[in-house]
Amino acid sequence: MVEKLVGKAREDGLKTLNGWVYDDAAGAISHAFKFKDFSEAFAFMTRAALAAEKAGHHPDWSNSYNSVTITLSTHDAGGLTEKDIALAQTIDKIMA
Amino acid sequence: MVEKLVGKAREDGLKTLNGWVYDDAAGAISHAFKFKDFSEAFAFMTRAALAAEKAGHHPDWSNSYNSVTITLSTHDAGGLTEKDIALAQTIDKIMA
Repeated sequence: MVEKLVGKAREDGLKTLNGWVYDDAAGAISHAFKFKDFSEAFAFMTRAALAAEKAGHHPDWSNSYNSVTITLSTHDAGGLTEKDIALAQTIDKIMA
Repeated sequence: MVEKLVGKAREDGLKTLNGWVYDDAAGAISHAFKFKDFSEAFAFMTRAALAAEKAGHHPDWSNSYNSVTITLSTHDAGGLTEKDIALAQTIDKIMA
């Protein structure tokens, strides 16, 4: 089982990400993305969904027209783990 | 511009739907769907996204693994309209 990231390991992981906000109480990172329209937002979601399925790690996310908000946490570990950092990095690459 | 549904027109519209809950305060209908896994949930979302794009009317929705919650309202009209009923009917057909 993957372990919850704490202290410097967590800080180092967060430093690799672009625009994600860590919520200590929730043990989660989140990021709100904006697109031109629904079509672009859902195209992004589709690429992120494929990445999530490949990783075997899935986001909690919502979409309203051109907005997509993604929250990542590892429920089994009760907080943020390397799985979340890795998926966020992949999502950052999709956005790049 | 499409008009907000009220009274009997709204009741008649809601009667055509399967499992949607009307929230009068929000002027919206919503439905929580469950699937076998993320793959099935996202496959459903993809079909619903295509239907929404075709209709030019988009849901507010969220997904967590095998759960998808959809909320429909017509923001321009400040409540529920025929556009919401029509999209909900299409989503019901996708689920059938």
